[in-house]
Amino acid sequence: MIEAMTTNETELNITLIATGTIGLSFAAFHLTNSKNCKLTIYDTRPDVSTYVQEQLPKFFPDQHHAIDISSITIAHNLQEAVINAHIVQESGPENLAIKKALWKDVEQYAPKDALLWSSTSGIPASDQAQDMHDKTRLLVVHPYNPPHIIPLLELVPSPQTSESVIQRTQAFWRERGRVPIHIKKETTGFVANRLAFALLRESIHLVNEGVVSVSELDSIVESSMGPRWAVAGPFKSYHAGGGPAGLEGFFKNIGGTVQACWDDAGKVNVGENWEGEVFRQAQEAYGVVDVEERDRITKRLLEVLREEKEKGKR
Amino acid sequence: MIEAMTTNETELNITLIATGTIGLSFAAFHLTNSKNCKLTIYDTRPDVSTYVQEQLPKFFPDQHHAIDISSITIAHNLQEAVINAHIVQESGPENLAIKKALWKDVEQYAPKDALLWSSTSGIPASDQAQDMHDKTRLLVVHPYNPPHIIPLLELVPSPQTSESVIQRTQAFWRERGRVPIHIKKETTGFVANRLAFALLRESIHLVNEGVVSVSELDSIVESSMGPRWAVAGPFKSYHAGGGPAGLEGFFKNIGGTVQACWDDAGKVNVGENWEGEVFRQAQEAYGVVDVEERDRITKRLLEVLREEKEKGKR
Repeated sequence: MIEAMTTNETELNITLIATGTIGLSFAAFHLTNSKNCKLTIYDTRPDVSTYVQEQLPKFFPDQHHAIDISSITIAHNLQEAVINAHIVQESGPENLAIKKALWKDVEQYAPKDALLWSSTSGIPASDQAQDMHDKTRLLVVHPYNPPHIIPLLELVPSPQTSESVIQRTQAFWRERGRVPIHIKKETTGFVANRLAFALLRESIHLVNEGVVSVSELDSIVESSMGPRWAVAGPFKSYHAGGGPAGLEGFFKNIGGTVQACWDDAGKVNVGENWEGEVFRQAQEAYGVVDVEERDRITKRLLEVLREEKEKGKR
Repeated sequence: MIEAMTTNETELNITLIATGTIGLSFAAFHLTNSKNCKLTIYDTRPDVSTYVQEQLPKFFPDQHHAIDISSITIAHNLQEAVINAHIVQESGPENLAIKKALWKDVEQYAPKDALLWSSTSGIPASDQAQDMHDKTRLLVVHPYNPPHIIPLLELVPSPQTSESVIQRTQAFWRERGRVPIHIKKETTGFVANRLAFALLRESIHLVNEGVVSVSELDSIVESSMGPRWAVAGPFKSYHAGGGPAGLEGFFKNIGGTVQACWDDAGKVNVGENWEGEVFRQAQEAYGVVDVEERDRITKRLLEVLREEKEKGKR
């Protein structure tokens, strides 16, 4: 099965179940990034053929002449949809009962080694798998919208998901230039949304207090941490900010300001005694950051952003 | 004075007080972005001339042959430093007593209409101005490090700072392609750091809980919200995510997940009854977001990031 995904000669059968915005975006990704990909779509909407024909090309405005949509199979029932699948990926409504019933059925009909992925942003694989006979096959593969553009995939297995299923899933995405990150615990909201929502919460607080407006707040993020974190994430950035002393040095220098901001925002579980392990990991991962390299890339990125936004205005 | 800054024929005298990393980065910015800029540096370190000669060129690795560092005046005392200044910008240690004494002295010697800027990340202008006779002239101009690269400047006036001083300061930065945002209240940590530290706090919590490692967390941010927010800030992104119903639609759809993440993180002041005003501002600022345009720019940005990071590896 891993070979089937890595060699170009063999067909790769991907079945997408429920093709709303996320499902179609995944369809666009697979069609552009997998050679010999045979896509099957199973969706209960009555006009599914017309819908796919009309909506899918919008996901690749630059390339849709090159992509053969007519090769997509529209399945009439679940059995037909998954019977030959190497991968079954569902992007249906956020409803536990529906997902539990779906995977119970999929398990009956799909090949034993097919990978089973859910795009859910909130329902853990361990809940979805409750009615499955073999719970080792299912995991969450949560995109950051839209998946045909944004490289991140959060892989969130249940405690029952097998190591080989996780590894085959990681390999699939890595081979296609994506960034699949294995989330070690089924945390509420996983990781990316938790981080983004933490910043959103503080954003709402500051607008609510009249400190800045909604659009001023967006301008602040677009012209500072957005481009910065596109180049180097928060830990790496602050580790660089601490100079040779790294993240520990950063907290030694301005930990007081950091703590004052945290205290002002309310009582939050940052956790106890985190310092040692977090500082150690930052040091191990980054040593001394090449700031000149970071600044060169950031500068280039900002130039491109300005050029592209100007283009948009024309 | 505004004319002096906008016409190219007149000299613009900028005095930088205390030139650590931030001060030198501002020096690099002014030398590259202001025509007819005459830079004066006042720094109490004994080897200041050698230090500037050696360190400043590192801030513009691509251009340092084109930049004339020898034109910089090194002042021997504060009076000499500020006597002809149009702008006095301090980037000294985060110490209230030092800053209070500094501005009291600067006020004695600098021209009456000189703009007085502090780069502090934490000491409000209203505290720094305590011993000044005329408190209308001073405001915080807080960069996001490093200021010669990152476009954001947070302008944080005290309640005493005059409107015209704020406007002249905004005009200066806008004319040079930067993003000066007027922060309406002297909030602890201002805005950018509060936002970044809110995300950092959640990052530390997740690493501390063993959900992901430091470098995995950075990868998540670099491959999702970093590039996303470089193109469209959090409010604009979620407003787009709600489709025609905007931010309100977004919260209607997944507000439950958002709240679950917030609750899981602890008790935080998000504020009461924020919805109406925040939704209204988002609608007013963005209407229906052009998602195709956003995705086009994001895709281009990610291509450039990949190219530039590859270059770095060679």
